[in-house]
Amino acid sequence: MMDTSTHINVMINSNIDDSVNSCVNDENDTEKLLKPRNNFASYSNDNINIRFRNVASLSIGETLSSNPRRLNVEEIPPGATNFLSTNYESLDYDSCENYLLQDEERKKGYKFIVKKNFARWFIFLLIGICTALIAGFVDISIEELSNLKYSCLKLYVDQCVTTNCLWLPYLLWLALNFAPVLIGAILVSYIEPVAAGSGIPQVKCYLNGIKMPRVVRIKTLVVKTIGVICTVVGGLAGGKEGPMIHSGAVVAAGISQGKSTTFRKDFKVFQYFREDHEKRDFVSGGAASGVSAAFGAPIGGVLFSIEEGTSFFNQSLTWRTFFASMITTFTLNIILSTYHGRPGDLSYPGLLNLGKFETIPYQIYEIPLFMIMGTIGGFLGACWNHLNYKITCFRLKYVKQKWLKVIEALVVAALSATLGFSMIYFLNDCKPLGQDPTKFPIQMYCKEGEYSAVAALWFQTPESSVRSLFHDPKGSHNDITLAIFVVLYFFLAVATFGLSMSSGLFIPSLLIGSAWGRLIGSGLAKVFPNCVVLDPGKYALLGAAAQLGGVVRMTISLTAILIEATQGISFGLPLIVVLIMAKWVGDFFNEGIYDIHTQMAGIPILPWEAPPLSNNIYASEIMSHPIVTLKTVENVGHIVELLKCVTFNGFPVVDPPNSDETEIHSYGRFRGLILRSQLIVLLQNKIFNRNLEYWEKSLSVKLFRKEYPRYPTIDQVTISEEEKTYMIDLRPFMNPSPYTLQHSATLPRAFRLFRALGLRHLPVVNDTNEVIGIITRKDVARFRIWEHRGRMGLDELLITNKI
Amino acid sequence: MMDTSTHINVMINSNIDDSVNSCVNDENDTEKLLKPRNNFASYSNDNINIRFRNVASLSIGETLSSNPRRLNVEEIPPGATNFLSTNYESLDYDSCENYLLQDEERKKGYKFIVKKNFARWFIFLLIGICTALIAGFVDISIEELSNLKYSCLKLYVDQCVTTNCLWLPYLLWLALNFAPVLIGAILVSYIEPVAAGSGIPQVKCYLNGIKMPRVVRIKTLVVKTIGVICTVVGGLAGGKEGPMIHSGAVVAAGISQGKSTTFRKDFKVFQYFREDHEKRDFVSGGAASGVSAAFGAPIGGVLFSIEEGTSFFNQSLTWRTFFASMITTFTLNIILSTYHGRPGDLSYPGLLNLGKFETIPYQIYEIPLFMIMGTIGGFLGACWNHLNYKITCFRLKYVKQKWLKVIEALVVAALSATLGFSMIYFLNDCKPLGQDPTKFPIQMYCKEGEYSAVAALWFQTPESSVRSLFHDPKGSHNDITLAIFVVLYFFLAVATFGLSMSSGLFIPSLLIGSAWGRLIGSGLAKVFPNCVVLDPGKYALLGAAAQLGGVVRMTISLTAILIEATQGISFGLPLIVVLIMAKWVGDFFNEGIYDIHTQMAGIPILPWEAPPLSNNIYASEIMSHPIVTLKTVENVGHIVELLKCVTFNGFPVVDPPNSDETEIHSYGRFRGLILRSQLIVLLQNKIFNRNLEYWEKSLSVKLFRKEYPRYPTIDQVTISEEEKTYMIDLRPFMNPSPYTLQHSATLPRAFRLFRALGLRHLPVVNDTNEVIGIITRKDVARFRIWEHRGRMGLDELLITNKI
Repeated sequence: MMDTSTHINVMINSNIDDSVNSCVNDENDTEKLLKPRNNFASYSNDNINIRFRNVASLSIGETLSSNPRRLNVEEIPPGATNFLSTNYESLDYDSCENYLLQDEERKKGYKFIVKKNFARWFIFLLIGICTALIAGFVDISIEELSNLKYSCLKLYVDQCVTTNCLWLPYLLWLALNFAPVLIGAILVSYIEPVAAGSGIPQVKCYLNGIKMPRVVRIKTLVVKTIGVICTVVGGLAGGKEGPMIHSGAVVAAGISQGKSTTFRKDFKVFQYFREDHEKRDFVSGGAASGVSAAFGAPIGGVLFSIEEGTSFFNQSLTWRTFFASMITTFTLNIILSTYHGRPGDLSYPGLLNLGKFETIPYQIYEIPLFMIMGTIGGFLGACWNHLNYKITCFRLKYVKQKWLKVIEALVVAALSATLGFSMIYFLNDCKPLGQDPTKFPIQMYCKEGEYSAVAALWFQTPESSVRSLFHDPKGSHNDITLAIFVVLYFFLAVATFGLSMSSGLFIPSLLIGSAWGRLIGSGLAKVFPNCVVLDPGKYALLGAAAQLGGVVRMTISLTAILIEATQGISFGLPLIVVLIMAKWVGDFFNEGIYDIHTQMAGIPILPWEAPPLSNNIYASEIMSHPIVTLKTVENVGHIVELLKCVTFNGFPVVDPPNSDETEIHSYGRFRGLILRSQLIVLLQNKIFNRNLEYWEKSLSVKLFRKEYPRYPTIDQVTISEEEKTYMIDLRPFMNPSPYTLQHSATLPRAFRLFRALGLRHLPVVNDTNEVIGIITRKDVARFRIWEHRGRMGLDELLITNKI
Repeated sequence: MMDTSTHINVMINSNIDDSVNSCVNDENDTEKLLKPRNNFASYSNDNINIRFRNVASLSIGETLSSNPRRLNVEEIPPGATNFLSTNYESLDYDSCENYLLQDEERKKGYKFIVKKNFARWFIFLLIGICTALIAGFVDISIEELSNLKYSCLKLYVDQCVTTNCLWLPYLLWLALNFAPVLIGAILVSYIEPVAAGSGIPQVKCYLNGIKMPRVVRIKTLVVKTIGVICTVVGGLAGGKEGPMIHSGAVVAAGISQGKSTTFRKDFKVFQYFREDHEKRDFVSGGAASGVSAAFGAPIGGVLFSIEEGTSFFNQSLTWRTFFASMITTFTLNIILSTYHGRPGDLSYPGLLNLGKFETIPYQIYEIPLFMIMGTIGGFLGACWNHLNYKITCFRLKYVKQKWLKVIEALVVAALSATLGFSMIYFLNDCKPLGQDPTKFPIQMYCKEGEYSAVAALWFQTPESSVRSLFHDPKGSHNDITLAIFVVLYFFLAVATFGLSMSSGLFIPSLLIGSAWGRLIGSGLAKVFPNCVVLDPGKYALLGAAAQLGGVVRMTISLTAILIEATQGISFGLPLIVVLIMAKWVGDFFNEGIYDIHTQMAGIPILPWEAPPLSNNIYASEIMSHPIVTLKTVENVGHIVELLKCVTFNGFPVVDPPNSDETEIHSYGRFRGLILRSQLIVLLQNKIFNRNLEYWEKSLSVKLFRKEYPRYPTIDQVTISEEEKTYMIDLRPFMNPSPYTLQHSATLPRAFRLFRALGLRHLPVVNDTNEVIGIITRKDVARFRIWEHRGRMGLDELLITNKI
């Protein structure tokens, strides 16, 4: 695998860790730390220096992450949450201020900056419009197809109730669920698995600064869009809101880059936005647009983006994000108003139309009631999350094959239809026609002039059911019906989230919550029959907020979203009370559902703050440190071998130490940092010292942007034997002054740098600025604080190369 | 002044700067840069090393900031905005992870963290409640006093109209304006000048990370509270909202520290929050509470805090902030509901009660109209800002004495009364009584059964006038009246903002805007008489938003505030359109009023992003670099002399270079950073090596917290001659691994560190980690981008030690 002439220096030292904790103020200890004490083995080698400690053997090609406190675990038990995967890298949010960039800046001048600013606004405008178009497409498709489905079902039910052939509509229902679910499941399982679920965890991780593979591709968008239509039309307990947020993010990433890998088309526009920094900013705008489209909540959208990505946020970005959100709401409003036959009315700001609440009166003495509802929501949400976690464990263990995933989705679809049909068949909940708040009133076994209130709950999209529960007049639903509905839908929703389908959990959670909320409201109204403020619709809204808050644990953006979606601003305070209680109670038991799924995937998401009491953990302890360094002027052959041998993505460029033994503890004086992708572009374009005259004029940062974001692998680059003898001067291309950290700095210090600046690599240097290791995202993310039932402590996660 | 045995090393080198721009990739240039080339003068000295370049002479005691691109300007022309004052330091947002802190952490454990978390929530609760109490006090006082004033005036006017003695109520009006304004002006001018104005710029700067002297003291709060009551009761064109935000900030700072310098009382609680980092977090919560109290807008409050302080924000802080805002709204609601005789009603969420808008219908074709209104607002706002800027220049030049400031305030108060009276006297705008939306209808020269609509505008607080303009039925005001009112109030408001009074500009701006908005609305209604959507109240609201947006240029938080204050969520989109247009148009001409005032004070506020195209400016060029360093073990006498001689606040601790001449270009290997305040505490407590055994047990970080935030000066510390011979080991106290920057790093890189991490000192090191300079806030803030009428460029501000 490797040229036999290439050797490695191996340095083994195992007695060091005890001394690390106590050495910060002692001058000599630093040297003790860095000087090998025993078992020193060295093989001569001029080219590649790989040094490590505490690793007995090392085969090149393996991932070299092996620190004292880490283990390479090949197999993690399904359902484990105490590990991080090495498969996730950080985005390169920190820009590389090398010679080429400076050169470009010098040439362009301020006119270019003004132009770029205009382009930015223009792109945000486009993002807003396109997100709205997609949202409109999804909404209208679902509306039309659902109407078709339920009107057809109603026809058969109405006929068969009299002729006693109710098995026919049941089978029809099954079939009408199966068809779209099959399409959706196949699309997701076989074509783009990353389109499964709501997409919110993925977008959260992306905004957190993680390079999530394939999440913002156009292929994902297509699968997601069709998939979510299939989910809702297929009658699953899923919503279209989460996927809408994901769609917004993809739209933003697509438009801002001016090219598509899926369609192999490069429009040659917006090339100066082809870097992770700019792309992530656009994606945060796209996510906000998505929220705005989903809920008609532009402020909520901005808050969502801030809540998930604050650390990199700034005012001008907030402002553009706001602009995009507003455009989305506006465009979608025009589309939907026109579709509903009221052009110019502008009363359809979002997909989720929860209906407008007029002023909702409430009294101070209701506040404790609201707190109790929040507590219930938090508890039910925690249960929901736990059950879903257990089911996900089961899925990880047993449902691995793609065909099994499709079957599983079909089973849940069948379950939905069966449960619904049973409820309609067995429950006798008749209400007089006339003020029926349903599109397809079904008589079933009710008397003439009445309709089945149970059927009304099932024969519509979940979103319409939420609206019914919010706004139906008092007494529209029997308590027993609601109670059974809550239980059934609770389990249905648990089983649905995590299927191989594109579906969100906002709507199911809202539906469960509004059902039990209404139940409480009508119960209270029975206890205090003279109290006018006990409107069941109000309690349905609070229950919905509590349940959703208990499941996802977002607070501030959710408040804004619910206020905007129901237009009930005077009701803001009760919503806040309920959401805060739900979060507190829920957090007492477990984490939010998105965090649970993120942890189960081992994604190294960074929390908001460094773990407390970790000031005694030093950079020298957490760094990855058999690392690979390059010289400022490096041999091409060595670079090629290196890239083939190791999987690192960043290489410190150093002045190598003298062969003098006193300096052997370091990799040499730090000069800069170069990325694997940069090296590959250099090799691919054969920018060697020997060709430099040829390149000098045309050499530009564009060369690197052209390949962004999917650079070729080293195996796709062909380098001839002669070229391998050439040299490359890395200095014009490397980042000459990346942020570095002293070995004696603490974990919180490294954490803050990563969190606030969006770093990917943080070289650790000693007292004389010589590289001794490198810190990456997983090195700081693996220290995670846990808080459970009022106690807390520090977890150190395992590192694995499993996805 | 200084011991004659203390000499200084002086190193002069003037030919360096040309070479800096081109040296980043050349190994040798670095050394060229750092090695002195000519005029090298050295005086032997072991103790204090002061080195600098480009400074021909240096008298100890002067501020040593003197870089190639800087000038020490003693006198800045009044009205200049192109300078920064050295009087403002950064907050120590970066915590000092020294031995003492680690020691404390080791002893406390996670139980302490849980306790601290609870304490944090508890403090936010207290902040919420206290802010609401203050807001309630202010509101009720203003309400009662204004009622008294205007009912008294009405009495006299009603009498005098018939008996022809109108000079009597005029004189009375003058007197009733003079009395409170005199109190307010004397309080502000003589007792606490920092309480002048709205306080929002000061809070903004504090949240930006600047140590604003005296801004968050209890004395300031008292003056502010009484002052704002005087302003509004005195009939000035000022509002109580800005001061309310400032009050919230002070409350937060006060409560979280558990002690008060004004009252010389230390409650010995919350001692672990006595650091800039924690304090600033609480202040951001307090500011949000203040907004929440002022406008009944908890979400708007959170957004305000985020908009001003995003860079240090995180989710848990957002969440606590939200909690405090909510508590404020709730408490204030209870207070005001009870006051207004409707306990439990909860319809008074804030001070600014703009009245609730029912659904406001609008049509797509109105959008261009909204954009035009935004444009007008932006333009008028820019004019307002420019005029106020001119007046402020005048004030800086001629109104310097305290008594002059008081007189000025009285003049404006007289002007207000005179203008108001003239309008009432000369304008004949009579409306039939019956649906009169005013508390004190005055007949003046109107017929029986009618009242003067002009008097209705003036005989109430500005806030009530805004409410009238929003909600009065069509035709309540004559167009002429409104037009004259707009012009008069525009100039009155311009003259008022910047007086030596506590007063905000939200209400005056809203009033001006709502007046011209209503004017436009009624004009349109006349042109299209059949169009029902042309409600003048709607246009008044949009005008108010446009005017306010044009003046202050906040976008997102203002939108949320206005939506929450008017409860008109369905009207969010038009508001956003108007605000964005107003900001764009206004920014085309000048900056927001707060920014203008901040710049005129030379406050080194950091913008959101580093100036573009500044990648060719290097850390070595921007750093302050005759700096003063200390040795790890330092002589007490030298420290004392040093602190007396120089005004620096941070000192790099180094291993001094050998006397070998090759190393003379640096100050020695970097070991850590120690603050002036830390040194003073060490000296004050006599923590010398000789006493160390005595101290060892009780030595704790509490010693430093006790003095926070106002440490004694070096002159207040007495050190005997014998003690001066002792040594101090600085290593347990210094920050052992602060963030550092390579000399070859660029300005944007330094900027990002400062912005994202809230730094105060950033030592600059060379390739071998030897200190060569230090970057402080003003070094990065002085590069400011200007954008004016579509063009942009880079300004380099002057540095001065003038306030």
